Amino acid sequence: MPDVDTAARAAAEAFETTRSATDAERAAWLVAIADRLDAAVDELVPLADEETALGETRLRGEVARTTGQLRMFAAVVTDGAYLEATIDHAVPDATPPKPDLRRMLRPTGPVAVFSASNFPFAFSVAGGDTASALAVGSPVVVKAHPGHPRLSRRTAELVTEALAAVGAPAGAFTLVDGFDAGLELVDHPAITAVAFTGSLAGGRALHDRAAARPAPIPFFGELGSINPVVVTADADAARGADLATGLAGSFQLGAGQFCTKPGVVFVPAGSALEAALPALVGADTPRMLTPSIADGFQTGSERVEAVPGVELLAGGPGSPAVAVTDVATLRSHADALLAEVFGPFALLVRYGSRAELAEALDDLEGSLTATLHAAPGEPVDDLLPRLEDIAGRVLFAGWPTGVAVTWSQHHGGPWPATTSQHTSVGATAVRRFLRPIVYQDAPDAVLPPALRESNPLGIPRRVDGTLRAG
Amino acid sequence: MPDVDTAARAAAEAFETTRSATDAERAAWLVAIADRLDAAVDELVPLADEETALGETRLRGEVARTTGQLRMFAAVVTDGAYLEATIDHAVPDATPPKPDLRRMLRPTGPVAVFSASNFPFAFSVAGGDTASALAVGSPVVVKAHPGHPRLSRRTAELVTEALAAVGAPAGAFTLVDGFDAGLELVDHPAITAVAFTGSLAGGRALHDRAAARPAPIPFFGELGSINPVVVTADADAARGADLATGLAGSFQLGAGQFCTKPGVVFVPAGSALEAALPALVGADTPRMLTPSIADGFQTGSERVEAVPGVELLAGGPGSPAVAVTDVATLRSHADALLAEVFGPFALLVRYGSRAELAEALDDLEGSLTATLHAAPGEPVDDLLPRLEDIAGRVLFAGWPTGVAVTWSQHHGGPWPATTSQHTSVGATAVRRFLRPIVYQDAPDAVLPPALRESNPLGIPRRVDGTLRAG
Repeated sequence: MPDVDTAARAAAEAFETTRSATDAERAAWLVAIADRLDAAVDELVPLADEETALGETRLRGEVARTTGQLRMFAAVVTDGAYLEATIDHAVPDATPPKPDLRRMLRPTGPVAVFSASNFPFAFSVAGGDTASALAVGSPVVVKAHPGHPRLSRRTAELVTEALAAVGAPAGAFTLVDGFDAGLELVDHPAITAVAFTGSLAGGRALHDRAAARPAPIPFFGELGSINPVVVTADADAARGADLATGLAGSFQLGAGQFCTKPGVVFVPAGSALEAALPALVGADTPRMLTPSIADGFQTGSERVEAVPGVELLAGGPGSPAVAVTDVATLRSHADALLAEVFGPFALLVRYGSRAELAEALDDLEGSLTATLHAAPGEPVDDLLPRLEDIAGRVLFAGWPTGVAVTWSQHHGGPWPATTSQHTSVGATAVRRFLRPIVYQDAPDAVLPPALRESNPLGIPRRVDGTLRAG
Repeated sequence: MPDVDTAARAAAEAFETTRSATDAERAAWLVAIADRLDAAVDELVPLADEETALGETRLRGEVARTTGQLRMFAAVVTDGAYLEATIDHAVPDATPPKPDLRRMLRPTGPVAVFSASNFPFAFSVAGGDTASALAVGSPVVVKAHPGHPRLSRRTAELVTEALAAVGAPAGAFTLVDGFDAGLELVDHPAITAVAFTGSLAGGRALHDRAAARPAPIPFFGELGSINPVVVTADADAARGADLATGLAGSFQLGAGQFCTKPGVVFVPAGSALEAALPALVGADTPRMLTPSIADGFQTGSERVEAVPGVELLAGGPGSPAVAVTDVATLRSHADALLAEVFGPFALLVRYGSRAELAEALDDLEGSLTATLHAAPGEPVDDLLPRLEDIAGRVLFAGWPTGVAVTWSQHHGGPWPATTSQHTSVGATAVRRFLRPIVYQDAPDAVLPPALRESNPLGIPRRVDGTLRAG
């Protein structure tokens, strides 16, 4: 693998080409990568399973999600609305006269992508960050995750081959490796943005580093989330046992190693959910993604269980577990109880009254998701604004694990869930690697096609204040 | 004036109301402020002139721009496209099944606004930052600029009265004062974003402070810009004397106290522009906005003139001045020569060949604007990508001072011009104070109106991948 400086310089050089490639050309790059990965699925999945133990079913699904994601970003840039093309014709007789102004988004330049441990395909070498940056013409330098080094290298080879075969410039995509390489990458003057999915500690360090550069760059991080679930008394009365089944499946899925794992669950005191849950907690010791994640799972669940007023409801050390407490204990030990435990662990919080529940929600920090299980037609005005305040996705049915990749999806919430107003999943993930440029009184011939008077690309544009769908 | 904690808590409380106010209600708030300021123009302009010496003509124009800006943001939120409403209906028979997902942007919460010295209306108490935050339902705490304290208080009184008269909640807008209050505001847990227009040193300090919070928040700053101008040999031959007139007007406008003042001008050696410019440089000592700005102007021009290889072409200490140098000197003393001098000062840089010009452009940092004066039909492929790289607005005629406020305008560029991918002027300024929320499988009745199936607001939305203009 190249060193960081070589990779970053190559990315800067490639940017000379990627920035002026057409949307159709870049869409073809993404489709070529998707095709190459799909064709190699029988080779990649066993390799991924050796390194992550996530199992063939899950990993095949993840390859499909990853290639679907690449094709979705190809569709997003082909659509062209992402450019936010906006034209205001000159108004020479205004006071003062208004010039002709035409704005669109352009790529920022090379992007550093930190791949994640828990999604070796979808949030890794050829995952959503890489796809959304390449889609808009920002070259990518990926820092491999140490949890799946061989898969990372093999995926990178396939991506590189696919890009070369369809004429993308060398340097548009490079893989680097090692802890120090990651730091060097964030510091490198050619890098214009950082995308990261991982732990709060690691993400905070990189965030601070990106902010401390001589020229600071944006850090788009997804760091940690407890994904609260609220079960109303009416919902528990109507379907508490079913909710227990759903929760048990969700918090233990993939050994609890999802950013969206439901970690804290508010239930009415004496709930049917709590009664049914213990029988659904697995007894096997799961194989965690890395030794440090296994350690974190162990120490995290011990930290929660050591709080006076917390009881173990089911499971035990090193295996899936559920603990239970009450709102008063939660509020007096928020630091210990409201930090993410990454792994198959969930904390039930019994509330007495609806008012007590609402107050408890006010203490929560940001999460990727918040789930509300209420009865049909039950008023939720007292709960919903609180959940909107702390989450980027609010669910009214189902469970937060499982992130459909669609135009409307996104994946973020207030700190510490994510850092930013733009997140790593869904069509708007591309916005992270773009910045606006406005052209004033430019001759039509020198304008990018997206802004030429005749709209040669047929894309959606806002012209003199009116949005035209293309 | 209230202390910071009182103001920030009041803003947080007001957010409970502003977040759920309709777009039409918030638009009415902005129009009420605009009407109140327009009605008070004869009182406000003399007060502003006493404190800033910017002159009645300029200040009356600035009031009109400010109230026009408020009305434009009212139009932006009434239009509704800013919400980026996106709906994907459920696909129950997909593998895995896709839920119903509906995304829109929601306000982040209270915003800290730092007003600027050089635009006592348009970038101050009721300026673009305040307007764009209130427009979307994010309450505002403004930190007054010490350069115009009485105007700031009077403007704040008018804004407060106007908001109260149309039923906006108390706390939606508050003014605070003092250096320490500014720091406290950036640190306050209720504040969700910072908007700043000012110096690089001050902005960098606040940027770093916002990033260092326990929960970091975005800092949207506009910090400093040299606004390079490039005059090709053909343009100089065709209209060098006219360009000198335009440049002289632009760099001396408002005593050079514009963020978009052209500071560094590349001209061919022996240019007609250089020959004509000295006669157009004023001899009067301008009154600067504040004593520290006057000091900075003096020391900044002295710093440039002290570099060996730089000559004074016209003007002198403390009054408007033009210095001249060559590309070799510029490149070997970039730190001294490429830092902004805020005030009526410009540096001409003589280039020998077009290749030498292009190389020099590669050394420039980010600016708000870059201006290219070429001959009609002259190829500019060697220059344009370099200017796009370093600026947020690229001009092909005219001069960068003068920022038309329209849907397509924006005001930013790579660091140190601004910090962010979103900037403080134009319709997209609202995006700084918004974050996405997606609702999964929500009952129609609990959804915000923008996302209900029937589209009761008639706004533009993307539905199942297709953009519909409303």
